[in-house]
Amino acid sequence: MTITIVGVGLIGGSIAKDLRVSGFAAHIIGVDKDKQNASYALKLGIIDEIMELEKAIPLSDIIIISIPVKAGTKLLPFILDKISTNTVITDVGSTKKDICDAVRMHRNRKQFVAFHPIAGTENSGSKASLEGLFDGKVGIICEKELSDAKALKQIAKMFQTLKMNLLFMDSDSHDLHVAYVSHMPHVISYVLAETVLEVEKSTASIFNLAGSGFASTARLGKSPASMWVPIFEQNSKHISKALDVYIKNLKRFKTSIDKRDVAVMQKDIESANKIREVLDGIKTRSIRKIN
Amino acid sequence: MTITIVGVGLIGGSIAKDLRVSGFAAHIIGVDKDKQNASYALKLGIIDEIMELEKAIPLSDIIIISIPVKAGTKLLPFILDKISTNTVITDVGSTKKDICDAVRMHRNRKQFVAFHPIAGTENSGSKASLEGLFDGKVGIICEKELSDAKALKQIAKMFQTLKMNLLFMDSDSHDLHVAYVSHMPHVISYVLAETVLEVEKSTASIFNLAGSGFASTARLGKSPASMWVPIFEQNSKHISKALDVYIKNLKRFKTSIDKRDVAVMQKDIESANKIREVLDGIKTRSIRKIN
Repeated sequence: MTITIVGVGLIGGSIAKDLRVSGFAAHIIGVDKDKQNASYALKLGIIDEIMELEKAIPLSDIIIISIPVKAGTKLLPFILDKISTNTVITDVGSTKKDICDAVRMHRNRKQFVAFHPIAGTENSGSKASLEGLFDGKVGIICEKELSDAKALKQIAKMFQTLKMNLLFMDSDSHDLHVAYVSHMPHVISYVLAETVLEVEKSTASIFNLAGSGFASTARLGKSPASMWVPIFEQNSKHISKALDVYIKNLKRFKTSIDKRDVAVMQKDIESANKIREVLDGIKTRSIRKIN
Repeated sequence: MTITIVGVGLIGGSIAKDLRVSGFAAHIIGVDKDKQNASYALKLGIIDEIMELEKAIPLSDIIIISIPVKAGTKLLPFILDKISTNTVITDVGSTKKDICDAVRMHRNRKQFVAFHPIAGTENSGSKASLEGLFDGKVGIICEKELSDAKALKQIAKMFQTLKMNLLFMDSDSHDLHVAYVSHMPHVISYVLAETVLEVEKSTASIFNLAGSGFASTARLGKSPASMWVPIFEQNSKHISKALDVYIKNLKRFKTSIDKRDVAVMQKDIESANKIREVLDGIKTRSIRKIN
């Protein structure tokens, strides 16, 4: 099977590595406007050749869009215009409503499967790609009723080859939930990093006094703007609501610190501690039935 | 050398393990009001015997207070009242001003060395203790001019045996800086955990949709109230100011999301990204000169 990956970055490159190892892809074409990144991917054998998108489209059984979400939303209708009936297309963006809306009425909509793998790191580029990144992780297919059975089966099979567990959701629910568990944590981490850098004029104090707790909380602060600005833009509404709740809760917690109100702090922390069970669940990577 | 550890939890137990392995301690006495935790530590050979504090004091060359900071602040003058001139005492609390203030005028102040190891995990109890937890980490000695040379030398040697890099600070500066790089990140993480649990009535959605990014940002949300409430209480002033700056920055970031102001988001994220260098510095664990 010939697979074209548009954007051979952390996610695109990691998909390519696993598709090759598993034998799912016989030939992998890389499309990337960053020439240096593409060359690196070619040199490392992540892709078999570099090609212009328009040339790659007719050669592909599957096309995977793996670029920032706003660019992906623009590119998808363009590709759908040109693909033959034998080609299936998917994307791996972290927002799903805008891209689904953009092609809802497209005559070839059924050849597209909207996908989001819950996997990644704070790094980027083909050099950051990892084998086994998707192993045991959750992958979400949105608006599955708008994809035809063949396309759905092929994309599901591909991501199951990467050992992902698949879930189905509508695109707005997807965007709402990931606003809380992924997009908001990124905002929180960016602002933590920014605040500490702003206050600690000398980074030496941070080097010396910060421990693994800070490193853990500020890690997402390293994530690239090129990926995250378009996500914040597209999921603005849900992230904003999530941040309203967060800021309200943060102010309440701060008031209890101001007042040295031990009972309220105790209660809040004990509520937060229930996250232990959830985080242990993420480790075991099982899928749970949503009520 | 006989060492008494008051509070054989994550930190006290980890110190005991390394002091034994290194040969620094010939005999380790455990004092712990949690009988089950103490029995566990004894059974595992983390300590050699369990004893009441008053009996342990005259037998000890070094006493290490490793209990929640408010309890430690109360206990320290009581121990200083009773120790002979041959005994040195230290503590490992995450706040330093209150404990230093509590004994500033004590006749035996010079036998105390105020200490804070920048090391830990979100877990607690002797069962969570780890060998090598302090290896390469920073340890801070506060108000060193109030400790006598012999006490200082002995405590420095002990923590260097644990392979820590030592730094010296006044207690108020210590509390100010750790408010930003440790205490505030804990608040941020607690409130993230609480907010997500509050909104996602079914934890299944969190299990399914949260990835390693959420796990990283919410990890500190697992930390125990018994340790953190007293820290927030004692360092209320500095944490409150840090949270004011954080909330101001968070609101500004939220406004840029609301307005889909790509340029402002880009700028904020690029500022935050500078944390990469700092976090890589934490990994290499070198000490930097503070300007």
